[in-house]
Amino acid sequence: MKMAIYGYGNLGRGVECALRQAPDARLTGIYTRRPPETVTPVFDTPVYHIDDLPAHRDEIDVLILCGGSATDLPRMTPDMARLFNVVDSYDTHATIPTHFANVDAAAKEGGTVALISAGWDPGMFSLNRLYASAVLPEGRDYTFWGRGVSQGHSDAIRRIDGVVDARQYTVPIQAALEAVRSGANPDLTTRQKHLRECYVVAAEGADTARIEREIKTMPNYFADYDTTVTFITPEEMQRDHAGIPHGGFVIRTGVTGAVGEHKHTIEYSLKLDSNPEFTASVLVAYARAVYKAYCRGEKGCKTVFDIPPADLSPLSAGELRRTML
Amino acid sequence: MKMAIYGYGNLGRGVECALRQAPDARLTGIYTRRPPETVTPVFDTPVYHIDDLPAHRDEIDVLILCGGSATDLPRMTPDMARLFNVVDSYDTHATIPTHFANVDAAAKEGGTVALISAGWDPGMFSLNRLYASAVLPEGRDYTFWGRGVSQGHSDAIRRIDGVVDARQYTVPIQAALEAVRSGANPDLTTRQKHLRECYVVAAEGADTARIEREIKTMPNYFADYDTTVTFITPEEMQRDHAGIPHGGFVIRTGVTGAVGEHKHTIEYSLKLDSNPEFTASVLVAYARAVYKAYCRGEKGCKTVFDIPPADLSPLSAGELRRTML
Repeated sequence: MKMAIYGYGNLGRGVECALRQAPDARLTGIYTRRPPETVTPVFDTPVYHIDDLPAHRDEIDVLILCGGSATDLPRMTPDMARLFNVVDSYDTHATIPTHFANVDAAAKEGGTVALISAGWDPGMFSLNRLYASAVLPEGRDYTFWGRGVSQGHSDAIRRIDGVVDARQYTVPIQAALEAVRSGANPDLTTRQKHLRECYVVAAEGADTARIEREIKTMPNYFADYDTTVTFITPEEMQRDHAGIPHGGFVIRTGVTGAVGEHKHTIEYSLKLDSNPEFTASVLVAYARAVYKAYCRGEKGCKTVFDIPPADLSPLSAGELRRTML
Repeated sequence: MKMAIYGYGNLGRGVECALRQAPDARLTGIYTRRPPETVTPVFDTPVYHIDDLPAHRDEIDVLILCGGSATDLPRMTPDMARLFNVVDSYDTHATIPTHFANVDAAAKEGGTVALISAGWDPGMFSLNRLYASAVLPEGRDYTFWGRGVSQGHSDAIRRIDGVVDARQYTVPIQAALEAVRSGANPDLTTRQKHLRECYVVAAEGADTARIEREIKTMPNYFADYDTTVTFITPEEMQRDHAGIPHGGFVIRTGVTGAVGEHKHTIEYSLKLDSNPEFTASVLVAYARAVYKAYCRGEKGCKTVFDIPPADLSPLSAGELRRTML
């Protein structure tokens, strides 16, 4: 399989690395909107301008889209699906149905296969919500995120006057996790589920009390949560908060039996040192599945719900049955 | 969907209960090798003799096979796949390829869809091994079972002279779980992974020291494990060990990045009050998927690896994208 990358930020770099772990894939190029000579790949991957994409169609079985969900993917994925098999990590849950419809129309027009919303949430977490609810229909599920860096919340803090840098960690609250695992089916408020930990570098002489107040009262982002704010030095930021870890939990509890007398708990969790690199690894596995679907003559938009698990693996069906079933 | 049950032990009873949670399925009958009047269903399900199966083909879209893996399913599944869409919980890992080949030939001959080895291991655990290894190719996975009742080990103890009743729990060793979660990729011996806890009711006057020695030195079953033996009264057995709980963990740790510098942990776990009822719930979800595949014109034997997750749910593709992705 010949793979290519569109967009070269943290996610694109992650895909470049992840493709080296795929025995059946070859990375033929990185495509960027920037002048290619200004982009330095991790390995010796050729870098091209996106204007070269149409001319390189023979070199690309699947194009892995590494743009952002806010502004890039809503246009990039349908545009590219007219020309290429594609996979993206579109993660704005509320607008997935619209994105799906747009990409489906484009892929059917182009005779290609497109898979949207691969990653871990949406992605692996979605799969676990689906499997668990299908197996335990009388039950309830809960998703917790973290401990991990929220880019959106970190950016929101950085926009406050007097803030030089900021890192925000979303932290699941242990008591809520335990209540869910117990099968008590608690109704949890936003505040009861997650804590927000903020590490802030303030400008010299800035009013830290005002910054802390502005963070804690910021609507949507922080006002509904218990939030801690810790001021640190630029050196501490560099030393202790350079990574982009994340993770979380999908837990479903349900009952079976003649009168629901037996409880069951299904729990899936991720602990990730690098959020973008793990997302990239999921994208690569689904790029493989997209290519298999295309080779079978399928067309249109798909999600992780539509892909037979075997399609994610480089192993044959017989090898999988022998070694993993 | 019209569903029927073949075989009415703990698993068959579990399927009868699980089908009441399926909004899109109707249970049309329980089929047994025993005289039907000797079988008492949990609800008011009609009970028939298996000889009636061929005459009832119009009443059965999928036949859910609830026989045992040792002697029933190797013949039952291919025999029934010639006449019906079927699903089974065949769980002898080593002989799955043979069973698959036999069932595949029969299902293709009959023009039916058969799904084998649904349950939790094989089944949900297998899916998690596959997904995790596809996403983190450079890694290692571990499966732990328990805390739960092993029927095979309990039976082995019961065969010892002087034993009236016995219950054996397989218990994962916490230190091993922690070592695996840390990403240390430990090489673990059989003894380091699981403990075997035995509760035994001895006959009056029996030599308990001899019984304990015979258990602890029993090859294959106990000799390779740290085993505890506790003698209890019949009343304690009844009071404290009447359930059939089980569960376990599938953990994969792996690395990503330019030089494998980032670690990731994927963990899936089950905590089940009733092993047979949870297995039954998985069987019912896969029976739904079998029927969908049959309606699309597919034929032959499948496993959980071949089924698109969406097929397990009674919800439409659009509803799933809107509510679970």
